[in-house]
Amino acid sequence: MAHFAIAHCNMNSFLAAKSFVRNTGSCYSICHNSVPFQTNRCSKGFLRLCKGRHQNQSIVRATATPMSRELEKRTLSGSLHSDSFSKPKKVMIIGGDGYCGWATALYLSNKGYEVAIVDNLVRRLFDHQLGIDSLTPISSIQNRIHRWKSIVGKNIQLYIGDICDFEFLAEAFKAFEPESVVHFGEQRSAPYSMIDRSRAVYTQHNNVIGTLNVLFAIKEFSPDCHLVKLGTMGEYGTPNIDIEEGYITITHNGRTDTLPYPKQASSFYHLSKVHDSHNIAFTCKAWGIRATDLNQGVVYGVLTDETEMHEELYNRFDYDGVFGTALNRFCVQAAVGHPLTVYGKGGQTRGYLDIRDTVQCVELAIANPAKQGEFRVFNQFTEQFSVNDLAKLVTTAGKKLGLDVQTISVPNPRVEAEEHYYNAKHSKLIELGLQPHLLSDSLLDSLLNFAIKFKDRVDTAQIMPTVSWKKIGVKPVTV
Amino acid sequence: MAHFAIAHCNMNSFLAAKSFVRNTGSCYSICHNSVPFQTNRCSKGFLRLCKGRHQNQSIVRATATPMSRELEKRTLSGSLHSDSFSKPKKVMIIGGDGYCGWATALYLSNKGYEVAIVDNLVRRLFDHQLGIDSLTPISSIQNRIHRWKSIVGKNIQLYIGDICDFEFLAEAFKAFEPESVVHFGEQRSAPYSMIDRSRAVYTQHNNVIGTLNVLFAIKEFSPDCHLVKLGTMGEYGTPNIDIEEGYITITHNGRTDTLPYPKQASSFYHLSKVHDSHNIAFTCKAWGIRATDLNQGVVYGVLTDETEMHEELYNRFDYDGVFGTALNRFCVQAAVGHPLTVYGKGGQTRGYLDIRDTVQCVELAIANPAKQGEFRVFNQFTEQFSVNDLAKLVTTAGKKLGLDVQTISVPNPRVEAEEHYYNAKHSKLIELGLQPHLLSDSLLDSLLNFAIKFKDRVDTAQIMPTVSWKKIGVKPVTV
Repeated sequence: MAHFAIAHCNMNSFLAAKSFVRNTGSCYSICHNSVPFQTNRCSKGFLRLCKGRHQNQSIVRATATPMSRELEKRTLSGSLHSDSFSKPKKVMIIGGDGYCGWATALYLSNKGYEVAIVDNLVRRLFDHQLGIDSLTPISSIQNRIHRWKSIVGKNIQLYIGDICDFEFLAEAFKAFEPESVVHFGEQRSAPYSMIDRSRAVYTQHNNVIGTLNVLFAIKEFSPDCHLVKLGTMGEYGTPNIDIEEGYITITHNGRTDTLPYPKQASSFYHLSKVHDSHNIAFTCKAWGIRATDLNQGVVYGVLTDETEMHEELYNRFDYDGVFGTALNRFCVQAAVGHPLTVYGKGGQTRGYLDIRDTVQCVELAIANPAKQGEFRVFNQFTEQFSVNDLAKLVTTAGKKLGLDVQTISVPNPRVEAEEHYYNAKHSKLIELGLQPHLLSDSLLDSLLNFAIKFKDRVDTAQIMPTVSWKKIGVKPVTV
Repeated sequence: MAHFAIAHCNMNSFLAAKSFVRNTGSCYSICHNSVPFQTNRCSKGFLRLCKGRHQNQSIVRATATPMSRELEKRTLSGSLHSDSFSKPKKVMIIGGDGYCGWATALYLSNKGYEVAIVDNLVRRLFDHQLGIDSLTPISSIQNRIHRWKSIVGKNIQLYIGDICDFEFLAEAFKAFEPESVVHFGEQRSAPYSMIDRSRAVYTQHNNVIGTLNVLFAIKEFSPDCHLVKLGTMGEYGTPNIDIEEGYITITHNGRTDTLPYPKQASSFYHLSKVHDSHNIAFTCKAWGIRATDLNQGVVYGVLTDETEMHEELYNRFDYDGVFGTALNRFCVQAAVGHPLTVYGKGGQTRGYLDIRDTVQCVELAIANPAKQGEFRVFNQFTEQFSVNDLAKLVTTAGKKLGLDVQTISVPNPRVEAEEHYYNAKHSKLIELGLQPHLLSDSLLDSLLNFAIKFKDRVDTAQIMPTVSWKKIGVKPVTV
């Protein structure tokens, strides 16, 4: 992956509070919209710096240089004083252009946190490479941030680059000085990691090395910074005993210890999260890093209070066989009259949560940080469902909307138990104050009606599974 | 790291059974000595291919091209028929130029296995970069292999390259068609992984991606091949309960399951082994790979029946603060009159084994392979000692040789418990037939006398710890 992602900047308005040209001759700047949303062109001020780019679409290599610190402080103090949040926190959101990251960035910004997004935008590249697309049309990250500013008057800083490039990450840390880092910045699809050898290697390299770099950046530049890392419930697999939150107390041969809960991940992606968890736990112990590992269930839904403010703030909605989750896919299938595709027997049971709970959970973790040296694990989901449960729920909800929903079983492309015991604890975030949205309440509003609204954008060719756990090979898959 | 290591070939004799020049224009060949050991120059035949290299030292980019298959079969059948081993096995030893790998290669070759070494020789590069050296003078891998052939008449094939380069590894697999792969080919020093950020990242990338590539190569080219992977007892850390061999049966809230033993590694190196173990376990389940994870204790000693046959077959003996282990270091310290340097309180207890037991264990694993889809874990050590125990043993043994051995405590550069419970099971290899060498019997012969023999080569500046677990930073350490 290139160290610096190249973003096509098609901006509504643009005032570069601080810009510079590096010795490399490349044009560097940062995208901050500090005047109201007006036009669809870059400002002349910016274009002059970009020497020769045409006016309404410029190549911007954004780098680790935020707007002027003074301007930033002034702007933020203005917005923060009007907020009930008494102690502003600077939150860096790595992967802030992605599904969970974008919703979280807006939620925290709205809550009065000072937010910076760090992202290399590679998730958008995956769409291009795989020929897939979000059901919802999603705006560029630059337009998203500008629109947010124009609506609520709050800045979100943007650092475009790859956290596997430590030089970039170090500059972002030094410039923003985060008090919390929320790390969503990983390749997050199990099927993607099982496409071919090169994607498996990419996933583990990208996720493990990116996280190592974040840990080193915290140690070096912001040692008191709280790392909130997105893990996955998939790290635990499906053991035949209750799943605890990160640790389990074991009495064995007359002695007792509390140890990390055993991990049984079932894809190269899930494994990369297991590796991350072990690496982070070590640095908490060795360096005193404070960290919270959010072992998240399957997230569903697309709307949050913030993303629904404007179409340009809409979140992505993946329903394809690689990045789509079962529930999103079922809703799209119901909307377009495609049978719901249950993989195998459908007894696969997992924890699920609404995207509105994801953003709540992250804030609860930030607002109640781990202690120095503590590696804290929360299981982040609200309800358990089997795949068959989901199919039934969507069928019932579809009927209310007059849809005739059928279900078929398709061969399971994964290697996983299709009938198993599953009971995972998830009380720690509730204890911190999480107010869950339940699927029964969200299914129609946030999912099925949404799928119907955008059903003309559905490409049914994307729905079926294309990636096989058993057939993955060394030959690069190019289509 | 470069994909192809460049070896200085200073050969005693050279007959390239199959050579070719690739389109890149580079000179490729393979180093097989099929005529008796005679001179110290490359053969003219080879030099002609190398166009313009001077005669007694040529740059060889060895690649995945073994000698002629027919020649190879003829030679091997000759040697194998004289051996008691009835069913020859083709064993690829990745990392076969290293401390454990070299001793294992010779042991297996001597036992009648058909052996190929795959190595990028980077361990030798580490010595150059860190300004350290083995106590024992070690010969080039080419000379080692030639000397072995000249003494016992057995070929060892050599593939020089980096297993992180899948193209290279694939060619090696296709050419050699291994029935067993013994994978020592990792950065194996905890202190090395804690030098600086770049070494931490290198260690995890190199070890994790290299192992992923091996798994993909087995799946693609040799699906029935048995992977024997070197892990480490350090994966378990120091839990307050007994350490089992890979798995632990847990009864929890009235239900029972046997799960992977929880891991608590304490360096980026040890963590890389934990990551490997999880990755391998998954591929056993998903693809039916057969694998044995040898969680090895600290290995000591330098002589095996094979390496002591000739000085050019000597194994390396590391005593420095980065690659040296406590026991080797203590012996060198005793030999040169340097106080034994105990880190901290010295209660750190680990499993230990003689290098002669390492080679036995590997053969036992190969000869009794894991079943298809089985991920088998053996704890590979024979005795437990605390660091203080080792210091006392070396002091007592030193007295017998008239040495005045003192012990001092130095600040512990690691983050680890210095007093703790430790009881690790290690019965599975015994059940397979391991005949342990005990330290009390080996200390004088294989360690202390050896250290005394080579004491003029000791560089005392290398002995003290230079790497701190807490002080590791992002700035590259260049000296």
